[in-house]
Amino acid sequence: MTALETRSQHRCFDGIQGFYQHQSTTVDLPMRFSVYQPPQAKDHAVPVLFFLAGLTCTEETFMIKAGAQRYAAEYGLMLVTMDTSPRQTGIPGETDDWDFGAGAGFYLDATQPSWSQHYRMESYVTGELREIIAQHFPADTDRTGIFGHSMGGHGALTLALRNPGLYRSVSAFAPICAPMQCPWGQKAFRNYLGEDQQNWRPYDATALIKDGRRVPDILIDQGLNDQFLNEQLHPHRLENACAATGQKLTLRYHQDYDHSYYFISTFIGEHLSYHREQLG
Amino acid sequence: MTALETRSQHRCFDGIQGFYQHQSTTVDLPMRFSVYQPPQAKDHAVPVLFFLAGLTCTEETFMIKAGAQRYAAEYGLMLVTMDTSPRQTGIPGETDDWDFGAGAGFYLDATQPSWSQHYRMESYVTGELREIIAQHFPADTDRTGIFGHSMGGHGALTLALRNPGLYRSVSAFAPICAPMQCPWGQKAFRNYLGEDQQNWRPYDATALIKDGRRVPDILIDQGLNDQFLNEQLHPHRLENACAATGQKLTLRYHQDYDHSYYFISTFIGEHLSYHREQLG
Repeated sequence: MTALETRSQHRCFDGIQGFYQHQSTTVDLPMRFSVYQPPQAKDHAVPVLFFLAGLTCTEETFMIKAGAQRYAAEYGLMLVTMDTSPRQTGIPGETDDWDFGAGAGFYLDATQPSWSQHYRMESYVTGELREIIAQHFPADTDRTGIFGHSMGGHGALTLALRNPGLYRSVSAFAPICAPMQCPWGQKAFRNYLGEDQQNWRPYDATALIKDGRRVPDILIDQGLNDQFLNEQLHPHRLENACAATGQKLTLRYHQDYDHSYYFISTFIGEHLSYHREQLG
Repeated sequence: MTALETRSQHRCFDGIQGFYQHQSTTVDLPMRFSVYQPPQAKDHAVPVLFFLAGLTCTEETFMIKAGAQRYAAEYGLMLVTMDTSPRQTGIPGETDDWDFGAGAGFYLDATQPSWSQHYRMESYVTGELREIIAQHFPADTDRTGIFGHSMGGHGALTLALRNPGLYRSVSAFAPICAPMQCPWGQKAFRNYLGEDQQNWRPYDATALIKDGRRVPDILIDQGLNDQFLNEQLHPHRLENACAATGQKLTLRYHQDYDHSYYFISTFIGEHLSYHREQLG
């Protein structure tokens, strides 16, 4: 069994908010993640919901800012979130940019020489971390959902589309919907995956749907006062791809809301309610 | 009218989460505060609840971590919180300690030479900031409550006891209940107020109650796994003073909860509900 270091645990809404670290074999470095166990988990295994955070975030951000524990405790859902990249890899330039490298792993497995040893967030999230949760926590892993924000919304959509059956529900807040078409995505894909754009398509939610990948349903909330909406997020491209291919999608626009956790916290309860229904 | 600089505003639970700065005449330096305006404030003035944060916090901490906006939006309460001290005063040693000086204003008016010009948080909170809120926001200031956490719980209790009628409701999370009897309080009082302990009593909630000050009611929540409970907080001393003098107090202990915002977020809804009832 993988050894876990408990960094801290806090009682929260009659459950346990915990922060953990372990030596990851997948990224070949220590990784940090956090888990909220709802009170129901004292008695029986509960469904699990993975949250993937956005650029610059850590395993703490969502647990501190989203106000999700209240609803997780009510609905009996376990919440899991993780750091957004390996840290202190020693790769030159890793911390030069806020939108690439450290804090910006983009939930993919890098193929390019500098990055491919450590930047393997897709395998970490879909493989090793899932197994750790199954081993160490009272999780009903047959009922696993995934959601995320911004870069993590991209991650939730692509990991669900790329791994049929692994996640039974998927939603996102202000996701990067078509990373091949925006500066954040192009920068990340060029550096992690190389110049050949054919290798980018498997990590672009809009392209994946055009190429025939499907999930049962998608819920997306998007603020109309989001400072990144026009240049980086492109939800209309995902919407068009879903409409053209019959992929079910609920895309809700919200007047005046921005890209912040104040937006996420407003709608977090509805997302947890949605996942609870989907997970049964 | 005092000029306000809006640092940022965010839509949140159909209300407005705003962060502001102004040139404070009271502390003779810029001060920062934040306001959550619930959706009801679009139509009419609403009751106001001041939150005083703990050591090391800023005007952002409570708004980010407590999950209070959800309840404020439901109950139609305005939330106001402020930085925990003046900043960059130039006083030697101001940032040497995490529990004194910057981030540790203790919600009092300092009398000692180095500190008395700027460290005037009691006058700032009870005077200038109240007036700014009344001028710039749709606040029904006849219905004002106050609450806080740790050092800010001390602040809420003492400001309510020292200013009869100014606050119609008061509550606290894990407050410093008898600062004259604990290291944090002794260090702050000695440096801000001087060696004569007679000058400390007006800023000690337990002493104020013993000396005859009263408020209509007090609600306190305290975790039993709080790492500061035994050395710094001393709720039993306040409890004894209340019992001896007939001051109404509801003091609730909670198994396993610690000093963090995970504790606060668990009970924040009950505090807002309590203030709503008290404020009518």
